[in-house]
Amino acid sequence: MSLSIGKAPRPDTSHEKHGEGRASLKAVTGDAIWAPSQRGAVSPFIVMEVMRAANERAAAGGDVLHLEIGQPGTPAPRGVIAAAHAALDNDRIAYTDAFGIPPLREAIARWYRDHYGVSVGAERIAITTGSSAGFLLGFLAAFEPGDRVALAAPGYPAYRNILRALGLEPVEIPTGPETRFQPTPALLAALDKPVKGLIVASPSNPAGTMLSPEALRELALWCEANGVRLISDEIYHGIEFTPVKGQTALAFSDRAIIINSFSKYFSMTGWRLGWMVVPPELVRSAECLAQNLYISAPTLSQRAAIAAFDCTEEADSHVARYRRSRDLLLNELPRAGFDNLAPADGAFYVYADVSGLTDDSEAFCKRILAETGVAITPGLDFDTARGHRYLRISFAAAEAEVAEAARRLVAWRR
Amino acid sequence: MSLSIGKAPRPDTSHEKHGEGRASLKAVTGDAIWAPSQRGAVSPFIVMEVMRAANERAAAGGDVLHLEIGQPGTPAPRGVIAAAHAALDNDRIAYTDAFGIPPLREAIARWYRDHYGVSVGAERIAITTGSSAGFLLGFLAAFEPGDRVALAAPGYPAYRNILRALGLEPVEIPTGPETRFQPTPALLAALDKPVKGLIVASPSNPAGTMLSPEALRELALWCEANGVRLISDEIYHGIEFTPVKGQTALAFSDRAIIINSFSKYFSMTGWRLGWMVVPPELVRSAECLAQNLYISAPTLSQRAAIAAFDCTEEADSHVARYRRSRDLLLNELPRAGFDNLAPADGAFYVYADVSGLTDDSEAFCKRILAETGVAITPGLDFDTARGHRYLRISFAAAEAEVAEAARRLVAWRR
Repeated sequence: MSLSIGKAPRPDTSHEKHGEGRASLKAVTGDAIWAPSQRGAVSPFIVMEVMRAANERAAAGGDVLHLEIGQPGTPAPRGVIAAAHAALDNDRIAYTDAFGIPPLREAIARWYRDHYGVSVGAERIAITTGSSAGFLLGFLAAFEPGDRVALAAPGYPAYRNILRALGLEPVEIPTGPETRFQPTPALLAALDKPVKGLIVASPSNPAGTMLSPEALRELALWCEANGVRLISDEIYHGIEFTPVKGQTALAFSDRAIIINSFSKYFSMTGWRLGWMVVPPELVRSAECLAQNLYISAPTLSQRAAIAAFDCTEEADSHVARYRRSRDLLLNELPRAGFDNLAPADGAFYVYADVSGLTDDSEAFCKRILAETGVAITPGLDFDTARGHRYLRISFAAAEAEVAEAARRLVAWRR
Repeated sequence: MSLSIGKAPRPDTSHEKHGEGRASLKAVTGDAIWAPSQRGAVSPFIVMEVMRAANERAAAGGDVLHLEIGQPGTPAPRGVIAAAHAALDNDRIAYTDAFGIPPLREAIARWYRDHYGVSVGAERIAITTGSSAGFLLGFLAAFEPGDRVALAAPGYPAYRNILRALGLEPVEIPTGPETRFQPTPALLAALDKPVKGLIVASPSNPAGTMLSPEALRELALWCEANGVRLISDEIYHGIEFTPVKGQTALAFSDRAIIINSFSKYFSMTGWRLGWMVVPPELVRSAECLAQNLYISAPTLSQRAAIAAFDCTEEADSHVARYRRSRDLLLNELPRAGFDNLAPADGAFYVYADVSGLTDDSEAFCKRILAETGVAITPGLDFDTARGHRYLRISFAAAEAEVAEAARRLVAWRR
């Protein structure tokens, strides 16, 4: 990087822009000094490019079926919306405690007791601005700069990118169908250098696979025995299609950081509300970090979300719909040539190995969009090494939209 | 730090907790390995301790006058609340683009044109989750780990703490009444080592002082000439009591990162909504970081905030009230012995040098609370070196509350 301070003197005219002296961009010192930071050089999500292409197609009059999206097509539960209306009328919507309002923290603690049979005090529940804030706070509280944190590939790309932005080293563990796209103690033990942390996601994005309670327990105990901080992303809990439901890692380890959110099961993405169960020894640190980095999570969302736990019937009706769309895709996709599919245990994704069809999943997705109007995400966001041979097909959209997409894909391949 | 992996074997009984094998906290390997990170060792805000003591006093039946708080006592403007009701009924409240919904970005761009006479494209406006997210994104996009960033002491403590959490080095410039508690080019030039960034806040928290447009312009041009990235915290803009209003740093430099928020002037703290004007060369980096670290700002807040710019009459009525409370405090506080006050140009704070009364502002504030019921923040949050001789007195509370507090402080000193 070549610096050239003082090389290009600022012309006097630059001071006259807007009559106030705004210096023109071309008149400043060499541009290299103003470049974004290296850690700011984060890859954009390719799914965003897909969405842009899909929107352009729609704007040009084409129809688009959205199987690229990672969020429910439904609004928040009716009870939540009603609670938000009431809070708008009755509450000042001021800052809250950094870890959130007590009634919501207590409701979440009850949820762990009632839903998982696990007891945890409300003082360990941190309300966060989406799960995103949970990851950032958890990583900051638990890890020193340079620490290595393991995670499965394929996986949610923000894990890698947040880790890197914070000076941590993501250590990707390539996984495949033989371990349900999940890490195992054996894979961790086989790493060439030790790690300080492990991120697991069950159900996972993009693979849609789950860890059995026993497999999660083994990972949690391996982490405790090896001084590895487990971060368990449980954001897709509740959207599960297996006979045995997922268990929270909290059941197996008080050292684990649990990340969850109202976004998926409760269909509340734009409300930007999640929570974290914080290990006792990290509570104070995470709270002080939250005060400084966030102040508090959105207050209206907090007030409204208390009602979410009374809305499980509506949430479960979405899950039933996802299940029907999933079953349809698992039947129809092989007829379209997508016959190498991950199990789709949970979440709303089918992860397809399309290595028999293409070795350029991005171009393949563009072609599918252009020729059928079906938007699908190439695997490159989730697995930089092998994603060119995978697709993620979401069934979060409306049931009829998913069904029509399947019909078109089958017709396209004939 | 002594590690002792394997020293304390886990007893078998620990697996039976909750019937699922949660390892007990005492049975795990040595505790040091599980300690919070060094960068997670952030100081809590002392104002939070003041608020806790005030709440305890209130819970015990005592009355409390809240001159410690840093937020308006009013809700959002009526038009914003109405817009939020409408959005709840008509919008799915889904994720938005990482930089926010176009109509809000365009409304903010218009605000710069109409309010400041500065033209900026909506593509440079990033909607953020409060100003907090703006700082985090801006710091990450602009600076490399280890970079030095200058800022005035006294100042908002989260600046220091966010910088440190991100591996940046805050370089505090002690300031006093002789520069209106603001940095100057001369103070910057006198630093023993160069800095990569400068944070300014005008009006400032806690000092309540402002940079004149000319002083801000000089700082902005000094920064450009010296390759220093200016971050201008303009969150208190609009709450100003000087004849000449504050100007945005955007008027003087396209290299500056502008941080603002709906929290203060528009009285929308709990909505967690702010914005950033991003220098062109950082737009892509900041957008990718925002995708990964936040996804997007709260959607309902975004929809509602479009209406804020039509609610300036209501916002200005709050400012008129702040002005009356300010004038009252500036008259009455000297009668209570607080006669060395910063100018209170803007924001809703009076910063008092109480070195003639105490050299332990924290104990002094506790005594005031205990003997008068008036809660005030000691300066230690804002200036670790000299804050023991300063107090921050807020006049954001209701007018009658501020007046009664002043009356009690005068009576207390007699």
